Amino acid sequence: MANSPPGTWRPLLCCLFLFLFLSLSTTALAARTTTRRHEWEISYQLKSLDCVRKLSITINGQTPGPTILAVQGDTIVVRVNNSLVTENVAIHWHGIRQHGTPWADGTEGITQCPILPGDVFTYTFVVDRPGMYMYHGHYGMQRSAGLNGLIVVAAMPGGLDAEPFAYDGEHNVLLNDWWHNSTYEQAAGLASVPIRWVGEPHSLLINGRGRFNCSAAGVEEGSCDAGLPECATPVFAVVPGKTYRFRIASITSLSALNFEIEGHPMTVVEADGHYVKPFVVKNLNIYSGETYSVLMKADQDPNRNYWLASNVVSRKPATPTATAILSYYGGHTSPRRAPPTPPPSGPLWNDTMYRFNQSVATVAHLADVEPPPRTADRTILLLNTQNKIDGHIKWALNNVSFTLPHTPYLVAMKSGHLGAYDQRPPPETYAHQSYDIYTKPTNPNTTASDGLYRLRFGSVVDVVLQNANMLDDNKSETQPWHLHGHDFWVLGYGIGRFDPAVHPGTYNLKDPVLKNTVALHPYGWTALRFKADNPGVWAFHCHIESHFFMGMGIVFEEGIESVPELPKEIMGCGETKGAGH
Amino acid sequence: MANSPPGTWRPLLCCLFLFLFLSLSTTALAARTTTRRHEWEISYQLKSLDCVRKLSITINGQTPGPTILAVQGDTIVVRVNNSLVTENVAIHWHGIRQHGTPWADGTEGITQCPILPGDVFTYTFVVDRPGMYMYHGHYGMQRSAGLNGLIVVAAMPGGLDAEPFAYDGEHNVLLNDWWHNSTYEQAAGLASVPIRWVGEPHSLLINGRGRFNCSAAGVEEGSCDAGLPECATPVFAVVPGKTYRFRIASITSLSALNFEIEGHPMTVVEADGHYVKPFVVKNLNIYSGETYSVLMKADQDPNRNYWLASNVVSRKPATPTATAILSYYGGHTSPRRAPPTPPPSGPLWNDTMYRFNQSVATVAHLADVEPPPRTADRTILLLNTQNKIDGHIKWALNNVSFTLPHTPYLVAMKSGHLGAYDQRPPPETYAHQSYDIYTKPTNPNTTASDGLYRLRFGSVVDVVLQNANMLDDNKSETQPWHLHGHDFWVLGYGIGRFDPAVHPGTYNLKDPVLKNTVALHPYGWTALRFKADNPGVWAFHCHIESHFFMGMGIVFEEGIESVPELPKEIMGCGETKGAGH
Repeated sequence: MANSPPGTWRPLLCCLFLFLFLSLSTTALAARTTTRRHEWEISYQLKSLDCVRKLSITINGQTPGPTILAVQGDTIVVRVNNSLVTENVAIHWHGIRQHGTPWADGTEGITQCPILPGDVFTYTFVVDRPGMYMYHGHYGMQRSAGLNGLIVVAAMPGGLDAEPFAYDGEHNVLLNDWWHNSTYEQAAGLASVPIRWVGEPHSLLINGRGRFNCSAAGVEEGSCDAGLPECATPVFAVVPGKTYRFRIASITSLSALNFEIEGHPMTVVEADGHYVKPFVVKNLNIYSGETYSVLMKADQDPNRNYWLASNVVSRKPATPTATAILSYYGGHTSPRRAPPTPPPSGPLWNDTMYRFNQSVATVAHLADVEPPPRTADRTILLLNTQNKIDGHIKWALNNVSFTLPHTPYLVAMKSGHLGAYDQRPPPETYAHQSYDIYTKPTNPNTTASDGLYRLRFGSVVDVVLQNANMLDDNKSETQPWHLHGHDFWVLGYGIGRFDPAVHPGTYNLKDPVLKNTVALHPYGWTALRFKADNPGVWAFHCHIESHFFMGMGIVFEEGIESVPELPKEIMGCGETKGAGH
Repeated sequence: MANSPPGTWRPLLCCLFLFLFLSLSTTALAARTTTRRHEWEISYQLKSLDCVRKLSITINGQTPGPTILAVQGDTIVVRVNNSLVTENVAIHWHGIRQHGTPWADGTEGITQCPILPGDVFTYTFVVDRPGMYMYHGHYGMQRSAGLNGLIVVAAMPGGLDAEPFAYDGEHNVLLNDWWHNSTYEQAAGLASVPIRWVGEPHSLLINGRGRFNCSAAGVEEGSCDAGLPECATPVFAVVPGKTYRFRIASITSLSALNFEIEGHPMTVVEADGHYVKPFVVKNLNIYSGETYSVLMKADQDPNRNYWLASNVVSRKPATPTATAILSYYGGHTSPRRAPPTPPPSGPLWNDTMYRFNQSVATVAHLADVEPPPRTADRTILLLNTQNKIDGHIKWALNNVSFTLPHTPYLVAMKSGHLGAYDQRPPPETYAHQSYDIYTKPTNPNTTASDGLYRLRFGSVVDVVLQNANMLDDNKSETQPWHLHGHDFWVLGYGIGRFDPAVHPGTYNLKDPVLKNTVALHPYGWTALRFKADNPGVWAFHCHIESHFFMGMGIVFEEGIESVPELPKEIMGCGETKGAGH
């Protein structure tokens, strides 16, 4: 439904009917919750997402995988068949809190053992909130290899979480970045001394499609074909005068993006499954792991097309703009005809304050304010630094670079395998009064640990993320942090050094937005609060694939004693090799 | 020891002393058996074996991996640490019969579950025969990705298997073929409809070194560097007047090879760990999985260098000759100086009879004849055909394309998981009187099965492999077949249709050579005999990596009831997910 195929008006009219039909169906479906079953086969296939052939991890032959459509309260059952030849797999349901099903979070090493080739593993969980979510591989760098897709949960009409806005139609937009190099090569390069960085993405993708310049240098002969339908520019069709909800998600491995619909201002109404106080933007900054809904009125000249554009921000771009086409039904132009104007190039890539201000503007919708607890029981200050271990470049929090244990915490803790991970908790704070966030670390060396933070069940926890200068001079990058198993209130952002004596006084306790992924801006800090009320073990990490791979994450445990008996299917590795089904 | 580094005479002299020292050491070591322990870390690294950077599976950072040196009767202990990020691993000890240790054969799906990332698995086995062997990945196409190396077992001096020939020094030569495409891509291409064949190898390697032409089309910018020491031409140094044993092994994924030492005839004295009746060749045909020892007299002009050359035969070559340099100590030339002559180009690639005759010439050494049983208790005729299943190209034996079960046979059979594989045995024969081996299959469709052949313990089994025309007209290729857990007598070869009423009368029952890998020539047949006297489950398959991947193999079981309790470490997958340690 999201894209109509390029072509003449005939398919578009066909799409219009399909669209009306599906709209009606969605309404009908929304009347009751149900169980939605999916059968997935994970395999490697040669795909040409940006016209260049590349080995990709696919679901039922597709990347992105099939969109999971559901209604709030539905139970989702996904039977995953691993047909990778020698490689295991695990799939995370990003933004789904997994209340009562902590073993279904899909984080290898944290909540489950990996799924072996030939094995079948069934994920069962409830989608208890409406909104736009994602799923993706959470093992090695499999997400970047193509193992990702969307979850769209419709609100129960008239329910508690009914939408405080109206629209006539909707489109889904999944943004990504893409390299021609394999993720194995990327991972091996990151682990090398000296590091061998893969470089900026070759392409940006919109709904799994991009357009690499086949005549560019370095393209292997015969591997690029601009004529493939697989990489045809996506077309989003709209009816003149109607209002559309665009659900936008970013699954990028690296890039912070800016998204724009040429000539059509967007009203931001939802973020990470929570309604926000509407605000209008010309373009939207979106970080990996985030989702937004915007409303857009199709009120422009229908006789020409318009660009949808995605551009890199925050890092100096070396990747061309990704484009799609917005086309009006009934307009006097072909839906796949390039608009007469150049594609939007987005804001200045290094205009941090532009992005910072949008972060700050994102607060809860008046009808959806859920006030946070007034105070926290515990505050964890996390200094994000780039470091080294034996010459390997790493990322660390409070000078500890995270490593995954080989026995998942959830399994190890429930079965008493205390030797499976470091029992010493990582540090709660850092020398925040003396650390100079504007210079590179004086002693970059750090240590690795798979220790975790154990939280008192039901307690209120504040986490303040502090960004700092990297190993190179004058360099600090946006880090999008994602929490599993919870939404958190975003209490505040700042640029500069966080002062625990001063800044908590500036927190927004009135209408903070609830999110599961939040930006930590260059040289900035971000404060968030959550209730440790979901029994299980939950990752909290930078959503940049390479950053987590290099240690930029931590893990929380809470209420492990309340987790019921674990399904045997999540076991069978590490210390529990003998504890499977 | 095998290669001296290129450079001036100083390092060569140094090498000479090292060589003398090691020769003495070997003699000293040979006096008693011992346990030799190895600690291996398996990881992906970017290597430039043929000057082009490629992601490779390495052992302790090397590919080929470290050579295992041992003396007949030694116990080898290899602790394998899997540091591949998302990928499992298994290592086969090619040519080692694993008497009493069938669980250490390293064949994923047959004798063990794969080793998970982060896991440690210890292989323990005895090398009970002297000779040249190999080890390599036996899971997916990991062997082709670089996971391979040599095992050299010295004879016990004065023992039963003492060498019936003399030499002054020795060199090891590991031959391989190499692609710049990843093995994942190769595997995905083989499984595609239509098949996407990777094409002929980019390079041939000698001891893990080749030289791709960096200025060739299609080389990614910056990925090729002809100046890297890693891809410097290997140099084999010899002392004038001395006789050298060259131990030569082929671990190719695809190619049949011809090996030559320019101007130096070779006397073949050993094959697959068995001494053969010496015969002199200008060059040696060697198929994937085979090993040979040849003696070579350093009796040529020491003031110039000579080529060692490896060329593709049997398939139309599209890969340049691999070269190394033979250099005389004390000669008036630099050891790394290119010889003044062009490298040998080998025999005509399609001269099947040339290779056939060499196969026939390889018979047991007079001092090492072990006569086969006069008759067989059971004869299995195997027709090798190329076939299709749902449009996928496969290989089949008697119209059954082999697939691996997800529970290893050894584990399934010992633990009574009869549902883990097809209980119906594959066919014992084919319509040998009516099948036209010279035309492509009239009905190419076939079926897949993971059924196996169960042999009566202690029985004598004949297997006749019959080659045939492939899916394309006028095409039949050499298939090197490798048997695990046994050596077999090679009773005979023929070109054309095997006739069970006629050809067994022509078998060589006097002095057949014992081997573990044998060539099946184009449109030919090969007859072999073995005793089913090694309790366990054993693969018998084409050693071309892609052919086995596409189903060209079978499995034998014998004496499973005599296999003692299995180590828990080989379990933990499929039906026995709960049965590990």
